Amino acid sequence: MSPEETPTGSIPESKSPKRWIIGDPLPTAMLEGELLKKRIALPIFASDPLSSVAYAPQELLMILLIGGLAFLSFAPWIAACVILLMVVVIASYRQLIKAYPSGGGDYEVAHKNLGEKAGVVVASALLVDYVMTVAVSVASGVDNIISAIPELAPERVLLAVVFVIILAAINLRGVRESGKAFAIPTYFFVASVFIMIVVGLVRTIMGDPPVAESSEYLVQGESVAQAALVLLLLRSFASGCAALTGVEAISNGVPAFRAPKIKNAQTTLVIMGAIAITLFAGLIIMAFISGVRYAEDACHLIGYANCETVPQRSLIAQIAAATFGNNTFLFYAIQAGTALVLLLAANTAFNGFPLLGSVLARDGYAPKSLETRGDRLIYSNGVIALGLAAIVILTVFQANLTQLIQLYIIGVFVSFTLGQSGMVVHWTKLLKTKPENPGSIKRSRLINITGATFTATVLIIVTVTKFTHGAWIVFLAMPILFTLMIGVNRYYRDVEAEVAVDAVTTFGAKGDHAIVLVGKMQKPILKAIDYAIAARHDSIEAVHVSINEVATARLELDWIRQNIHLPLRIISSPYRDLSWPLIQHIREHRAQHGSEIVTVYLPQYIVGHWWEHALHNHKARRLKMKLMLEHGVAIALVPWLLDSTDLIYGRRSRPVPGQSRRGEPIRPPARKPMTPAKREKTDTE
Amino acid sequence: MSPEETPTGSIPESKSPKRWIIGDPLPTAMLEGELLKKRIALPIFASDPLSSVAYAPQELLMILLIGGLAFLSFAPWIAACVILLMVVVIASYRQLIKAYPSGGGDYEVAHKNLGEKAGVVVASALLVDYVMTVAVSVASGVDNIISAIPELAPERVLLAVVFVIILAAINLRGVRESGKAFAIPTYFFVASVFIMIVVGLVRTIMGDPPVAESSEYLVQGESVAQAALVLLLLRSFASGCAALTGVEAISNGVPAFRAPKIKNAQTTLVIMGAIAITLFAGLIIMAFISGVRYAEDACHLIGYANCETVPQRSLIAQIAAATFGNNTFLFYAIQAGTALVLLLAANTAFNGFPLLGSVLARDGYAPKSLETRGDRLIYSNGVIALGLAAIVILTVFQANLTQLIQLYIIGVFVSFTLGQSGMVVHWTKLLKTKPENPGSIKRSRLINITGATFTATVLIIVTVTKFTHGAWIVFLAMPILFTLMIGVNRYYRDVEAEVAVDAVTTFGAKGDHAIVLVGKMQKPILKAIDYAIAARHDSIEAVHVSINEVATARLELDWIRQNIHLPLRIISSPYRDLSWPLIQHIREHRAQHGSEIVTVYLPQYIVGHWWEHALHNHKARRLKMKLMLEHGVAIALVPWLLDSTDLIYGRRSRPVPGQSRRGEPIRPPARKPMTPAKREKTDTE
Repeated sequence: MSPEETPTGSIPESKSPKRWIIGDPLPTAMLEGELLKKRIALPIFASDPLSSVAYAPQELLMILLIGGLAFLSFAPWIAACVILLMVVVIASYRQLIKAYPSGGGDYEVAHKNLGEKAGVVVASALLVDYVMTVAVSVASGVDNIISAIPELAPERVLLAVVFVIILAAINLRGVRESGKAFAIPTYFFVASVFIMIVVGLVRTIMGDPPVAESSEYLVQGESVAQAALVLLLLRSFASGCAALTGVEAISNGVPAFRAPKIKNAQTTLVIMGAIAITLFAGLIIMAFISGVRYAEDACHLIGYANCETVPQRSLIAQIAAATFGNNTFLFYAIQAGTALVLLLAANTAFNGFPLLGSVLARDGYAPKSLETRGDRLIYSNGVIALGLAAIVILTVFQANLTQLIQLYIIGVFVSFTLGQSGMVVHWTKLLKTKPENPGSIKRSRLINITGATFTATVLIIVTVTKFTHGAWIVFLAMPILFTLMIGVNRYYRDVEAEVAVDAVTTFGAKGDHAIVLVGKMQKPILKAIDYAIAARHDSIEAVHVSINEVATARLELDWIRQNIHLPLRIISSPYRDLSWPLIQHIREHRAQHGSEIVTVYLPQYIVGHWWEHALHNHKARRLKMKLMLEHGVAIALVPWLLDSTDLIYGRRSRPVPGQSRRGEPIRPPARKPMTPAKREKTDTE
Repeated sequence: MSPEETPTGSIPESKSPKRWIIGDPLPTAMLEGELLKKRIALPIFASDPLSSVAYAPQELLMILLIGGLAFLSFAPWIAACVILLMVVVIASYRQLIKAYPSGGGDYEVAHKNLGEKAGVVVASALLVDYVMTVAVSVASGVDNIISAIPELAPERVLLAVVFVIILAAINLRGVRESGKAFAIPTYFFVASVFIMIVVGLVRTIMGDPPVAESSEYLVQGESVAQAALVLLLLRSFASGCAALTGVEAISNGVPAFRAPKIKNAQTTLVIMGAIAITLFAGLIIMAFISGVRYAEDACHLIGYANCETVPQRSLIAQIAAATFGNNTFLFYAIQAGTALVLLLAANTAFNGFPLLGSVLARDGYAPKSLETRGDRLIYSNGVIALGLAAIVILTVFQANLTQLIQLYIIGVFVSFTLGQSGMVVHWTKLLKTKPENPGSIKRSRLINITGATFTATVLIIVTVTKFTHGAWIVFLAMPILFTLMIGVNRYYRDVEAEVAVDAVTTFGAKGDHAIVLVGKMQKPILKAIDYAIAARHDSIEAVHVSINEVATARLELDWIRQNIHLPLRIISSPYRDLSWPLIQHIREHRAQHGSEIVTVYLPQYIVGHWWEHALHNHKARRLKMKLMLEHGVAIALVPWLLDSTDLIYGRRSRPVPGQSRRGEPIRPPARKPMTPAKREKTDTE
């Protein structure tokens, strides 16, 4: 480049260099602008826990009905137990948010207080849970769609798979979570179900209680022994506990809240809990009033016509039909809202996965590339893996909600239990180290002790009642994930030790030699030669590996014609191989010149279209790999931007799933103004 | 590295440096050793053309039988036509080998004499043909296996797919074509079929002609009008022409023959032709004598029991059973030999593909990486693509040989016709430029004119008779491949023009600055600093992008403790992004220092296991990509070999499919002795 030329390519904006380095002023204020208001945070984090009321009451009643109609009288008590558990868990998570506002959630708490293994167990439980969240939410969503449009019944599995593919595609594409996209369906769902419950209750008070279409069916109850009775009640409770899934979401998203973060997150959690409990209780009551019968197998319902082919309608659909009338506008509205919020809940898992990944990567349990959250390839693999796992699970279990629920809540309660236990240890430690305000700490600890006890009990119940119903798969998957994560961690630890600076390894290179690898006489080569000369190495030579004599002769001619003041060394390659003769030449040079460092200059094509990669650089890449295995060799890549790289400029980085949940800002687009002057072409005099 | 240390890592063998550069002496003699003797070349190249006699006679007779038993009397005449065609084609190829011994075959001839488009048409025809060679050979092989073991009949498609997968796996793995592996089954097949024919003829002369099991069946001939009669005969002839497939193989493999290459290749071609004609004629005669009935649909054979489920036995199987007795050892031997030679023929396509690829790449119609034949990834993609295409075709056509044959020979005859036409042009040109010995040239031209006329006629017949029977697929696939290849060529042409040296673009960098990007204080960083210092840039600085304040503080401490005499510049990254602050720093530097060239030193981990790539280098790779888009930046990669790279040493490069057909030598393994002293560890003082 000539000195006369103004460096237009370098700083086109009229900003001071300082601004370029420390960035625009007031980044904190900007960050605040990216963060979530409570009324937007609520739907983003609550679509998962709220959506679970779409299936939890139904599964609770269904299990009871195995014992016969008489068992339905247990329903209020079991529902009360679930609600009590919910209150305890929400209270426990309020403590967790206060103590660990960094967004690590149960994983962080278990890891810090109970040790590495407990943390990784939580992580593996959460990974399994993400798959099950997708599977269960989609299956329930499809169930509610079929309840509204029974014609779709034969395509249940296909529909579920298609929805998973659509969700995966959206997340692969990288759509930013917008508050609106979550807020509208979630609030719509909450409002419509709430109205339905109120209308139902008012009608009941007015003496016109809604009557479910299934209320006329009798049930052929199995004769249940005393021991089996208890087991059945426990199973019903365990299925009802599905209502708790997703409660932990807010504790993972504290950094995304506006200041005061902790208080806002806690408030949102309580609001969410209150809504969930209201909806859950309301649906149970309405099911009770309207006399909904929902059986594991429709053929157990005496009087149910064509039980083999016609599917039962979901509990919500039956209540909606009873309250608003079958196939009315309001009925369809309820079903649409339910299906939509369930699909949003499934989407939550696609967002939660990279979040957990970045935390695990930070701690060295997952590939480091997950940490900085910029590598779309890695996220894409994650999204694809999550989608495939969900599709496999959905296909194997034929998108049957009841069977999928069996696998679901194990992971949630493993994570709950270890998280709460960790909190107990945390408060106990705090009591020792910071004994001021012991009353408050002791109260917090009591809440978490209660939480840990309750969730541990539920975990045992869930494991006992569900293990043979399919939950064994979870107990197979978790150890595999656990082992993988521990393996990754040990690998990083070993590498860390391998590259740690020590006293015995010292460096002190003597001498320096540069080789410019020359093929055809083309601009990229000239640029590489120019750069090599500019770097003023001790010695420098151009090397051409001769595979084709005609090409070599042409190069030698061009060399003279271009008047290049560098010695051109021709190395013949009897086996038509590029790398081996070059490597031998380098070894020889190092042997003669006291182990100088050799820098090999390679021009590198930079392309714009993905498919162009298939047409370039393979030779250079292979050569680079081989040279890098050599002693004392460094590779200098001199980029040559082909015209097609225009495409890369002005291309904004796409958002990564889960970005807004983490409270991560998106870098303002600052590259665009660079476009006009960016090209190597401007090197022209 | 200390000067006292002996450079053991560089040249462990006691060879002179010259040997290292020009390679071992006598490479020509070594090359000769790698080349093929005639008796080994014959089976390698002839398994494809000879195997086609396993299905050509059967298909010829089958089409005739559509017209009824009476039509069988046309068989000798049609067979005679096929044999005549074979003689003409072989004579034509003898000329082609003489004129174009470089191994480019029809593609090269058409390209050089009829222009680019004709050449690419031949190439696309050949690519289609590779797929069909795999499909037809495997289908016929499975057919012959089922003829011997009828229990396998329901698994026809599965068997075919499994064989394709096995062949693809073998070629992905990279097994070198050994002469023996080809010679034994091919000679066994030729000998056994030959013996069968001789035994059959002798028995006929002795008055005890073999009688085929199907000879008792009558055929419900369709009433055939005069015009349809001719069409039926032409169809029969077209199907019989399948016997010619593969004849061109030797013309593509001339470089693999020992000197005198042309004469040896020609002799081998003639021997192969003689064998093929003998077997073809012998099988037609034996089918005629033994009265084999083979119908398109077994239910057209009157008296054939369970025609819906029991498949017909192949013509070879029926003759073998009639001659040697059903289920005798010799019967099984014939079937095994036939199946084996057919699978070898299918393997031929997997070998031919990279061969054609390298020729196309040389001319710029396929990715350049195919040319040097070292990039296994590309070959693997090719092998996988070929295998998948064959599997799709086999599945769609249910491995039905008769239907597959319809698609087969179009490509062959497109290539024949254009190749022969090209030869005619070649001789005509030669007659003008080198008018000495015009008689010989004119005779050669006459042979090729005959060949071109015959093959063009057959091409028309084949197209007319087969188009509606499935051949339209070929006429769909060929233009797509043609367009792709022309597209690749135009792309390379554009890039070539873009990077061509011109008078207006000049280079002349002023100044030079080096930046060592520093993360944690680890050995790879120290090595990179060491290399950067050794290269004696005009100015040099270490740059740390601060994402985590604690880590930055630790680095600053380590910097002082390690006593590194380089300025350490800390750049804060408000958005936790590595590349953007660094790029801004570089732009600022270049703005202040008159557009110096900036070399960024990046340590690069080199790993041994494939899975380690997932755990390393993503950050560096992304950063590298972004830096390379910047003006005036070169990247210096300083490799750090992790212990696991031990695995890479001593790993021999695997052979590439088709290597021996091309006469390409495999580089002698020379890296192994490097192992003990190769490690960076020896940099220790």
